[in-house]
Amino acid sequence: STRILKLVGIFILSALGLELMAVLLRYNRKKRTKLQEVLFFPSRVTCVYPSLYVESGKCGCKRSHADSSIMRLIRHLLSTRQSLDLCLFSFTDTELSSTVVLLHQRGVRVRVIADSNYMALNGSKIGILRKAGIPVRHDQSRAYMHHKFAVIDKTVLLTGSLNWTSQALLENRENLLITNDEALVKPFLDQFEELWEEYDPTKYNF
Amino acid sequence: STRILKLVGIFILSALGLELMAVLLRYNRKKRTKLQEVLFFPSRVTCVYPSLYVESGKCGCKRSHADSSIMRLIRHLLSTRQSLDLCLFSFTDTELSSTVVLLHQRGVRVRVIADSNYMALNGSKIGILRKAGIPVRHDQSRAYMHHKFAVIDKTVLLTGSLNWTSQALLENRENLLITNDEALVKPFLDQFEELWEEYDPTKYNF
Repeated sequence: STRILKLVGIFILSALGLELMAVLLRYNRKKRTKLQEVLFFPSRVTCVYPSLYVESGKCGCKRSHADSSIMRLIRHLLSTRQSLDLCLFSFTDTELSSTVVLLHQRGVRVRVIADSNYMALNGSKIGILRKAGIPVRHDQSRAYMHHKFAVIDKTVLLTGSLNWTSQALLENRENLLITNDEALVKPFLDQFEELWEEYDPTKYNF
Repeated sequence: STRILKLVGIFILSALGLELMAVLLRYNRKKRTKLQEVLFFPSRVTCVYPSLYVESGKCGCKRSHADSSIMRLIRHLLSTRQSLDLCLFSFTDTELSSTVVLLHQRGVRVRVIADSNYMALNGSKIGILRKAGIPVRHDQSRAYMHHKFAVIDKTVLLTGSLNWTSQALLENRENLLITNDEALVKPFLDQFEELWEEYDPTKYNF
């Protein structure tokens, strides 16, 4: 009967061991893949050139090289490998448009949906994106295409109050929520494809 | 030795049984509490009065009583029990301001943060909220307090491109993300408290 007790002990310990392994595996997987971040603006003014054009610490400028909301946004964008879908009411910031053009030049499939009223305003970068060869579509309505979201590689959503303007980044109170939760990303992907089709230039009514 | 084999069998089955129960419990808890929804606008035009003023189907109007994005937004708001924290760039819609005043009259602790530029414009409901006794605070800057988010009972976040205006609800392309994921709600709660303190009227510089 001590032999049976020993066996009972061994089996209980094995079961607990397996359970612990399962918990650790789940924990690790979650830690590796779950992305949830909220950025607030105005951002601190920091140098963003190292990530865009030169090696870190090699730009030689006198601005701060600390982390900032702008810097984190640009780093997320630069992590794009396959596709970048942008649906933006207003896009006037030079550093963000440089980032998008750079991604396009790297072979990322960039698509842009813009608002017809705001894309024509002074300072809009939509013309520069088009000249670089990036396809842009827009609504035909006096109502606003007021979304401000981006989807990276069909898996990471960036959405919030933030227009991609210098005023929004450096002066306003703004938020940008970043997640790879499929239940939240999927509706935005579907919305992008729906608008992309609806705003197909071959369907414009002049 | 058959007796030992039997015992081994019993313990393996018990371990599997416990594991199964644990999985089912986890599944049930997730299903019950996880809230993730994305609303898109423009909303269909539907009657919202049943949820606000009369029993369902008793308003007698000829508008559609189907579900719509506006209706879902109002239903979420009406589910508030304790507190409603609103941080809104622009608030001009009558049905939404009626909903907020109703919650205040029910004893919900409502707080509103507004943008100093937009709260003074024609059609803003900020004056009506203040007259009803709801505390309102605002920035003192020419830059925009451009957030458009709400937190219900400190647990449910509603955030997106949507200002609380009739044009946004019924004409523009807009999004509103709704979640009770603590990792996303907490930063917005902190941001609200930070702005609420910063915009304390006793700290205004005239």
